[in-house]
Amino acid sequence: MSKPSLPRGTRDFGPEVVRKRNYILGTIRGVFELYGFQPLETPAMENLETLMGKYGEEGDKLIFKILNNGLDEPAKQASAREGFDKILDGKNSTSVTEKALKYDLTIPFARYVAMNHGQLTFPFRRYQIQPVWRADKPSKGRYREFTQCDVDVVGSKSLINEVELAVIYHSVMTRLGLYGYELRVNSRKILGALAEVCGGLDKLTDIAVAIDKLDKIGLDKVKEELAARGLTETQIASIEKYLTIAGDNEDKMRQATELIGHTDSGRQGLNEIRFLLDHLMPGKNAPGASPNLVVDLTLARGLNYYTGIIFEVKAPPSVQIGSIGGGGRYDDLTGLFGVPGVPGVGVSFGVDRIYDVIEALQLFPGDVYTGTQVLFFNLGADESRAAFTLMQQLRGTGVRCEIYHEAAKFDKQFRYAEKKQIPYAVILGAQELTQGTCVVKDLVKGEQITISQEALPRHGF
Amino acid sequence: MSKPSLPRGTRDFGPEVVRKRNYILGTIRGVFELYGFQPLETPAMENLETLMGKYGEEGDKLIFKILNNGLDEPAKQASAREGFDKILDGKNSTSVTEKALKYDLTIPFARYVAMNHGQLTFPFRRYQIQPVWRADKPSKGRYREFTQCDVDVVGSKSLINEVELAVIYHSVMTRLGLYGYELRVNSRKILGALAEVCGGLDKLTDIAVAIDKLDKIGLDKVKEELAARGLTETQIASIEKYLTIAGDNEDKMRQATELIGHTDSGRQGLNEIRFLLDHLMPGKNAPGASPNLVVDLTLARGLNYYTGIIFEVKAPPSVQIGSIGGGGRYDDLTGLFGVPGVPGVGVSFGVDRIYDVIEALQLFPGDVYTGTQVLFFNLGADESRAAFTLMQQLRGTGVRCEIYHEAAKFDKQFRYAEKKQIPYAVILGAQELTQGTCVVKDLVKGEQITISQEALPRHGF
Repeated sequence: MSKPSLPRGTRDFGPEVVRKRNYILGTIRGVFELYGFQPLETPAMENLETLMGKYGEEGDKLIFKILNNGLDEPAKQASAREGFDKILDGKNSTSVTEKALKYDLTIPFARYVAMNHGQLTFPFRRYQIQPVWRADKPSKGRYREFTQCDVDVVGSKSLINEVELAVIYHSVMTRLGLYGYELRVNSRKILGALAEVCGGLDKLTDIAVAIDKLDKIGLDKVKEELAARGLTETQIASIEKYLTIAGDNEDKMRQATELIGHTDSGRQGLNEIRFLLDHLMPGKNAPGASPNLVVDLTLARGLNYYTGIIFEVKAPPSVQIGSIGGGGRYDDLTGLFGVPGVPGVGVSFGVDRIYDVIEALQLFPGDVYTGTQVLFFNLGADESRAAFTLMQQLRGTGVRCEIYHEAAKFDKQFRYAEKKQIPYAVILGAQELTQGTCVVKDLVKGEQITISQEALPRHGF
Repeated sequence: MSKPSLPRGTRDFGPEVVRKRNYILGTIRGVFELYGFQPLETPAMENLETLMGKYGEEGDKLIFKILNNGLDEPAKQASAREGFDKILDGKNSTSVTEKALKYDLTIPFARYVAMNHGQLTFPFRRYQIQPVWRADKPSKGRYREFTQCDVDVVGSKSLINEVELAVIYHSVMTRLGLYGYELRVNSRKILGALAEVCGGLDKLTDIAVAIDKLDKIGLDKVKEELAARGLTETQIASIEKYLTIAGDNEDKMRQATELIGHTDSGRQGLNEIRFLLDHLMPGKNAPGASPNLVVDLTLARGLNYYTGIIFEVKAPPSVQIGSIGGGGRYDDLTGLFGVPGVPGVGVSFGVDRIYDVIEALQLFPGDVYTGTQVLFFNLGADESRAAFTLMQQLRGTGVRCEIYHEAAKFDKQFRYAEKKQIPYAVILGAQELTQGTCVVKDLVKGEQITISQEALPRHGF
């Protein structure tokens, strides 16, 4: 038989990686709960029709579809054969595949809200941390199975929700030790106002696409692209003025007001940001303050369904990783599923990238590297039975213990502890058994002491 | 568009259900960690060839296969069409499907150990809590996506591992409040000895299959079945004598020794159980004692790969749910993947059934029903800004809070708190704002007090 392997773009997570991931996910989950968000879990599989057509033509192609079972049953063969022709034709066929793996958490969330909106209490505050699957070409940092981590409030237009989400970012990032992160904020309404001022709303997409590339290609190339997209020199000059707005948040607000504050859309967008600034920067030490908030008028967040405030989180500048989260406000979550009138706002955390940032900055806490804390040596039948009893007492105090599985030479047991990075050994030989004592050995320092067996559960580990 | 729905046999888990499930899974995970087991996570998708042929012909049919992407590309169409003919013929074809959803946690674990055995430290103690997928016909309590929860030690033949697993069951069950559970134990070697004594080892399967049905069909029907399977009256009489062995554990051991203690296999099996009894029942209050251990010589655990001790956990008799876990020792985990010589022992927890038992016995702790603990009322812009600051202080002490999303009538905000079962409200109106106070209302008791804002973070919730 050939050597076993993993599907491309998928990963096993061994013990240390699971502990590191759980440290991140547990931190995020803890903050979500503290902010009154409730957990939701949806199945890995959705009906294909729930997913198709929601992610654009490119997205549709990247959905993993599940083959119907029992296609070899005689009654099903004819329609399956016919259905497969459709699939070869780039279409779908429920006689071949009617289920698929979820592609993100947003559409399943929308499906859930649409199915349960009569029972839910709005505003509905939910978080969801689950894997999703995409048939993307695997590359460094891009996987076919990866964890998404979303938090949304739906059924409310209040900006207090945006404030809450900004504070959630701040709380998570500082708990993870990423003090140098930046939360960039803008409003789609401001970009709309810019388009209105520079060529009309029909140019919004052109302008947003070009601006989105500013970081990558620089101002000159953006200007070239705008010209290629048919904007006039005057319009491009206005956009350039907008793109070169600089200074602190208040400077930027002032300059933006001059440029687009006279339009309805501009005024609304600036008011949204003002609301955030008032709540989040009342003084850097005030509770709820998020001094990492940066007004970034060049933030566009692609061409998706955002309609108001948009967010993006940048990793601390000491690592070259860039965006580790983002989100924004949308007008209509569930319209696609026949339930109109559910606006909301949500953000997500890029778990894999946050992992890489924390790894690069060596910010994982020491205890993620420790599994078992104490190894009880096994030195024979009577000794191991006594050791087992002692071990149970120690476990009762919350210390993670194991006993070596068989009586073996000291060397072998030490080597096992070393390989598994177990910091302490408890040794109970014939002599200790008679004396009611045990030897506690600190394997990191190489020191050891003999204590009474009764004292062991009170010995700190 | 048609109303959205879920694939058959799958479930959404809303907030309360997630909290209840996490209570169970967190309890189990906590015990696993305390016993020095390490977490492993494998992808949802495995290569089809990793899974096929491992679960018998019936099992193969229940594996969810994933359609290859890009089948509509011209270069792939011909071989895909050819491959689909094979699928209609009940065979597999990598040109149509090369990946599948995992069917259990054991084969992916074996694949992981085979792929990494050079790097792992043996004995390798791992636990794994993840969803698996089966295209079974959905019915009450049987789902197409469900969570498995496995714990194994591999690379060791020592019975101390069986002792550890038995104590893990005891620790989890008592932490969950299921004091009346029973851990049934037997050894496949004893069943082998019985077959040896009653008709030869070639009858082991017949005998095991029949015995396995004892609970369901009763002794008379088992005897009929044994006769139909060609056993003589004398043989059946011996089996009957074996099946009617009764009394406490020591009684059973004595009677079994009489019947099959003279065979090698019987002696070995009885010694295995003796080892467990010596370690686990040294006195009901001794550390590590598992007084719920019941020697059950009729336990067979189907026809799988077990070779030594087998376990089954029965729910407390006050609920009619039966088995909520089981497992046993196997000789060879990874031989199928080209790595021989890795014996092990493992058990699993039936999470969905444990959930049903705890629900039926009303043993979920009160706090799984509480999401947000405190709702801050929103009574206007100035009031809500002050409330927000207070809320952040309270969150800083670990209290789960939210603020109502908009200024609204008292009624509406109370109704929201009630629907969400939030136990406390903090009310901060214009008067409280001036006085530096706030009203804390206990929504369960209907009582309220006015306290200073400074005192709020020290007020217990």
